[in-house]
Amino acid sequence: MAAAAAVENGECVRVPRPTNPMVTPLLTDLYQFTMAYAYWKAGKHLDRAVFDLYFRKNPFAGEFTIFGGLEECIRFIANFKLKEEEINFLRATLPACEDGFFEYLSSIDCSDVEVYAIPEGSVVFPKVPLMIIEGPVAVVQLLETPFLSLVNYASLVTTNAARHRLVAGKPKNLLEFGLRRAQGPDGGISASRYSYMGGFDATSNVAAGRLFGIPIRGTHSHAFVSSFLGLDEIIDKRLSSSDGSNKCEDFVSLVQNWLMKIQDASSLRGTFGETNQSELAAFTSYALAFPNSFLALVDTYDVTRSGVPNFCAVALALNDMGYKAVGIRLDSGDLAYLSIETRKFFCTIEKEFGVVGFARTNITASNDLNEETIDALNKQGHEVDSFGIGTYLVTCYAQAALGCVFKLVEINKQPRIKLSEDVTKVSIPCKKRCYRLYGKEGYPLVDIMTGEDEPSPKVGERLLCRHPFIESKRAHVVPQHVEELLQCYWPGNSSKQREELPSINENRSRCMRHLDRMRPDHLRRLNPTPYKVSVSAQLYDFIHFLWLNEAPVGELQ
Amino acid sequence: MAAAAAVENGECVRVPRPTNPMVTPLLTDLYQFTMAYAYWKAGKHLDRAVFDLYFRKNPFAGEFTIFGGLEECIRFIANFKLKEEEINFLRATLPACEDGFFEYLSSIDCSDVEVYAIPEGSVVFPKVPLMIIEGPVAVVQLLETPFLSLVNYASLVTTNAARHRLVAGKPKNLLEFGLRRAQGPDGGISASRYSYMGGFDATSNVAAGRLFGIPIRGTHSHAFVSSFLGLDEIIDKRLSSSDGSNKCEDFVSLVQNWLMKIQDASSLRGTFGETNQSELAAFTSYALAFPNSFLALVDTYDVTRSGVPNFCAVALALNDMGYKAVGIRLDSGDLAYLSIETRKFFCTIEKEFGVVGFARTNITASNDLNEETIDALNKQGHEVDSFGIGTYLVTCYAQAALGCVFKLVEINKQPRIKLSEDVTKVSIPCKKRCYRLYGKEGYPLVDIMTGEDEPSPKVGERLLCRHPFIESKRAHVVPQHVEELLQCYWPGNSSKQREELPSINENRSRCMRHLDRMRPDHLRRLNPTPYKVSVSAQLYDFIHFLWLNEAPVGELQ
Repeated sequence: MAAAAAVENGECVRVPRPTNPMVTPLLTDLYQFTMAYAYWKAGKHLDRAVFDLYFRKNPFAGEFTIFGGLEECIRFIANFKLKEEEINFLRATLPACEDGFFEYLSSIDCSDVEVYAIPEGSVVFPKVPLMIIEGPVAVVQLLETPFLSLVNYASLVTTNAARHRLVAGKPKNLLEFGLRRAQGPDGGISASRYSYMGGFDATSNVAAGRLFGIPIRGTHSHAFVSSFLGLDEIIDKRLSSSDGSNKCEDFVSLVQNWLMKIQDASSLRGTFGETNQSELAAFTSYALAFPNSFLALVDTYDVTRSGVPNFCAVALALNDMGYKAVGIRLDSGDLAYLSIETRKFFCTIEKEFGVVGFARTNITASNDLNEETIDALNKQGHEVDSFGIGTYLVTCYAQAALGCVFKLVEINKQPRIKLSEDVTKVSIPCKKRCYRLYGKEGYPLVDIMTGEDEPSPKVGERLLCRHPFIESKRAHVVPQHVEELLQCYWPGNSSKQREELPSINENRSRCMRHLDRMRPDHLRRLNPTPYKVSVSAQLYDFIHFLWLNEAPVGELQ
Repeated sequence: MAAAAAVENGECVRVPRPTNPMVTPLLTDLYQFTMAYAYWKAGKHLDRAVFDLYFRKNPFAGEFTIFGGLEECIRFIANFKLKEEEINFLRATLPACEDGFFEYLSSIDCSDVEVYAIPEGSVVFPKVPLMIIEGPVAVVQLLETPFLSLVNYASLVTTNAARHRLVAGKPKNLLEFGLRRAQGPDGGISASRYSYMGGFDATSNVAAGRLFGIPIRGTHSHAFVSSFLGLDEIIDKRLSSSDGSNKCEDFVSLVQNWLMKIQDASSLRGTFGETNQSELAAFTSYALAFPNSFLALVDTYDVTRSGVPNFCAVALALNDMGYKAVGIRLDSGDLAYLSIETRKFFCTIEKEFGVVGFARTNITASNDLNEETIDALNKQGHEVDSFGIGTYLVTCYAQAALGCVFKLVEINKQPRIKLSEDVTKVSIPCKKRCYRLYGKEGYPLVDIMTGEDEPSPKVGERLLCRHPFIESKRAHVVPQHVEELLQCYWPGNSSKQREELPSINENRSRCMRHLDRMRPDHLRRLNPTPYKVSVSAQLYDFIHFLWLNEAPVGELQ
């Protein structure tokens, strides 16, 4: 794939294009272009502007968020250039605009834009900028919509995945199965990528696996089971043993013999009758194709009376040939009950036939799971080893959007503020620096924003942290460790060092590491404690000075 | 863009590739490939299978759905072909599979697949197949995930848009503003496309406007307003009149004079004081850039005390120069109250200064709107002419997924059923024909599914329609008009005529027409009446025969 070049410290840097080829400079709101024209007409288009990209509230009634989407933003600006046919389309769309404007548009790229950002995969909090974007106002405005589009869903779904990991617990295997229910094809691809970053182990999505190097998993569906009519459909019944030392000429009979043995076993007698023979044929056929990785979907007809006994017959036949069956998948019904019954059945098989380890055969569950249902399963008790999660994960069903915004905070070194009758919507002016302060026990205590030129917080020095809007909320902190949050990922023409984009696995590890070191009450599902976000005393005073300055004085009548 | 060719009745048909280049045969679940291998190993891969694509429940607590996504499905299969590098990736992912399988995979396309579908934009109901896909089982399985991914969200967001249109009413202007909050970039692009199909008038999304020929709208944001510091920033103050007959050398002074006149007008005296001068500069500057389409966002500082008076000053100055301002946009606060206050202000301006038509200046509202808030605005009374709708529309916040499924209903002419303890999840077997029956008053009465070879319902002939699962629910119908629902959009090797893919405007008109002819109680927001979906007596009997045949008999203990 083609890539753009940028010159950095005399070196040529190549950053690949955005993963989705539809991410182009036209993937933006028309008003970004009408504003660009108005800036250009007013001769203001080169005014140096600073924008903050941030969100106002954590999603899913939680008190944390994971930042995702940075790499795609950097790919976007690294390759930002309007093509001739795109300019022509804009010309036709905005016939009132002068020719010179389109010449200007065709000249722009992001070589004089600077982007600072928190590393992808970090735990982040409201109001603190995830990204600070500085550059010519007309150009940076054009970036607003694509950046928001690339960050909002990425951060939302990464957070959702991390929440699922927290509730499921570390030992469980988490599989993302959402492609078919995602909001469009790249909703599905992004969901796979960012679910992995947020702590999932694998995806069913082949394209995402290929694009991002994520482990891919999958076995078979109900349709496979019901496509078989009976065992006589299986023509080639041979199976070589795992070590190649011998060959079973009629694996179907071996399976049938095992089914009879299970039916006759004293400890299982009467628990099930005739099993479904088309299901048995499907399982046998699948085992012949994948003897090393046999996992069967057992709920097409009846889990306990057909699916599990059929699975066990095939698994025991495979065992005779030196193969170890992987397990079963439950896709409907009472998953707590069915997983426990299945585990009991596996234990009985292990005891009855002396197959060591059979009791621990994997149980995967996958029916419309989400944080709440996993939490409920945990409370009831269950025997599920792996969760396959689709719809609720990838569509972020519990809250389908994160409200990241992109606000002007400074232009030509003049701080700017956006007021609102809703105080949570007032923007925090100035180009800022942001820090995370850690306490004695190693937990992060508070994030603090300061003006760009203020001295940075020092370890061991007492510091006043103020709530940005509520006068009475303030606290002294003596940090044991200070971390600057934003790094330079795109230096533009400045001489700053460009931070490399980490791999997806590095971002995934960062996410796990950040969650591990949070104080647990910030992460809990019910009534989590809000993490504190503050401003320095100096920034506080400046915000309120500017606020009074810009707000009109009312006239009571 | 490259396109594939298919031979149809001796003619070569070219269908463009999917709109999103990421939609490839690998955009599927891995289990489609593992199943394909198991079919191939069993020699079953060419078995002729029929799958139904349908949903089980209407979204948004409603009783109707609009079908979207068909064109992309047809584009997908028309161009279905695995590339060598894709085969190589699969080979590495599935090392247990034999070489012959990959040779088979590299040979397949969709030339022997047949696709029948309800036209895109139609009103549709649960259980009735939106699409019927027939072909070699291994190939059709590979289509499952991409088809679901292309139909689920498309249908969901089209339905959501149609619901917003119903609640807003036909005369209102509906604008889709959701790109920044959509679930990823093509979530945004698809949302724009299908919102238009569902009845929206325009989008802010430039890329979608270009791809699909949808009208594009946009003006400016809060950042534009706050980027100005004062009127002295405006260097070029000249404005030619609309007809070119004269030129104002100092449009800024003209605006300032009008602001003073408004402040001094007897009927407005005391309603506002000093307005925000950076806002006035931004409005003036925007008007100089777009004198013919001046629309101002008036809530950056204060709507009634600053934004609206500033807008009126600029609008009256434009009026002096022969231009008509378009209107204002409200993006926060109490939209009912603010729109009414703004309208009063406009009326006063019209009267006070004799500017005919000023009272009818457009008012657009755009803050986190959805069906509920528009309904609430309607009940309170408001003066909004246009609604800009983003987050709640494009993410389908009220219900973020539609649960379309893809179920095997027949293989090698043998009907198949998928059972479930949840009766609503039992599939309806057999390749079917589906009809909509209309009553005397012109309303659709019921949809009916029959076996493929049953005679079709006849106008004026009494017919028994049965609920597919509940024995006691049945009704006689004498249809006044009978419409067959599915048409052939991809004939494969059959001799059937291929239905052309209609334009987006045709689909949009179909959607509007279908909604117009529904009985209103099916469409209402609160407690809508379910529309009836039935099967023929013969199909009913067959379903229940098969059900008993496949279900295991329990053993009570």
